[in-house]
Amino acid sequence: MTMIVFSGTVDRLFPVGVLASGGVAQGMDVDIFLTFWGLEAFTKKKLASIPKIGKDYEAIGGMVMQAMQMKHVPSWYETLKKAKEIGNVKVHACAMTYDLMSMKKEDLADIVDDVIGVGEFMDMAKDAKVNLFI
Amino acid sequence: MTMIVFSGTVDRLFPVGVLASGGVAQGMDVDIFLTFWGLEAFTKKKLASIPKIGKDYEAIGGMVMQAMQMKHVPSWYETLKKAKEIGNVKVHACAMTYDLMSMKKEDLADIVDDVIGVGEFMDMAKDAKVNLFI
Amino acid sequence: MTMIVFSGTVDRLFPVGVLASGGVAQGMDVDIFLTFWGLEAFTKKKLASIPKIGKDYEAIGGMVMQAMQMKHVPSWYETLKKAKEIGNVKVHACAMTYDLMSMKKEDLADIVDDVIGVGEFMDMAKDAKVNLFI
Repeated sequence: MTMIVFSGTVDRLFPVGVLASGGVAQGMDVDIFLTFWGLEAFTKKKLASIPKIGKDYEAIGGMVMQAMQMKHVPSWYETLKKAKEIGNVKVHACAMTYDLMSMKKEDLADIVDDVIGVGEFMDMAKDAKVNLFI
Repeated sequence: MTMIVFSGTVDRLFPVGVLASGGVAQGMDVDIFLTFWGLEAFTKKKLASIPKIGKDYEAIGGMVMQAMQMKHVPSWYETLKKAKEIGNVKVHACAMTYDLMSMKKEDLADIVDDVIGVGEFMDMAKDAKVNLFI
Repeated sequence: MTMIVFSGTVDRLFPVGVLASGGVAQGMDVDIFLTFWGLEAFTKKKLASIPKIGKDYEAIGGMVMQAMQMKHVPSWYETLKKAKEIGNVKVHACAMTYDLMSMKKEDLADIVDDVIGVGEFMDMAKDAKVNLFI
């Protein structure tokens, strides 16, 4: 399966971790392509900052985040990291966004495997059973 | 076909009903997985409240909603209900979100069939011809 | 491959152009279905107006758009137009949205090929290797 992670709000990153876990549980290889705000969310700087909820859901968002803390739900990053430890999960940074945002390798979270172009990613998506744009 | 319904704004719920109808018209089985704000949108409480448009489209959103009323376009919920009456449409609640939001069966709209885990859903998606994240 | 373009903010339209280019580079046919704010974004009127960034990313959005201008990154529309010149890219307007917004053929950008129903689109998606909802 593949996921194009375009979004950078914490509510949309959560499904990335959970769906990767679900994919791994079903024995699938998981390829994640980080682009735009999705790539920014995987920078060390952003990971160290306070996570933001999508503005459409601000009203209820705080309550849900509080419930997560109370129920000791692991963060999306921890969930994704665990999926990567258990199964074949690869995290790719979009070369175009990487250049556009003038990033360096050391800016990116440890979970990121490499920087690839959109053509290379589409080649993976072509052969995948499930493709999602998040 | 499968749809992961993550979003809870009325403009994004509309395509859920319409695409389910389109899928049914093409003879496809439709499995819908409600998660996060998508599951919240399918609670009786939320369905009884005033629908909200995505903040990115507030400027034009009101006009479009007004056009819908004038042209007697059925609501997204009615559209989905009709698709379910005509074809094989199943609506699943995400177990994790269900637990996180401390929901009970009676909180959910009648259209919801069951509560399942992400692994079970990914097993359906694996065999589907079309998978969408909305 | 197919893409359902629901969104109308410039940050989400950018991937439409780039992914179409990637698909064409991999020898795929690309069918794009414009619906809701996605169809509105493809009107001549909207294309002539100042592009808007998703509200979730306004803080960093301005910086990224500036970087795009400085690095002479072509617009999403130019990128999509180029993909259409190189490969088999078809741009379809959603009939329901078209009627709902009381559009006329001359309102739409030149890149739009035709107006089709959701059933016809789902028939294309059924046979595609990659389907995305943007």
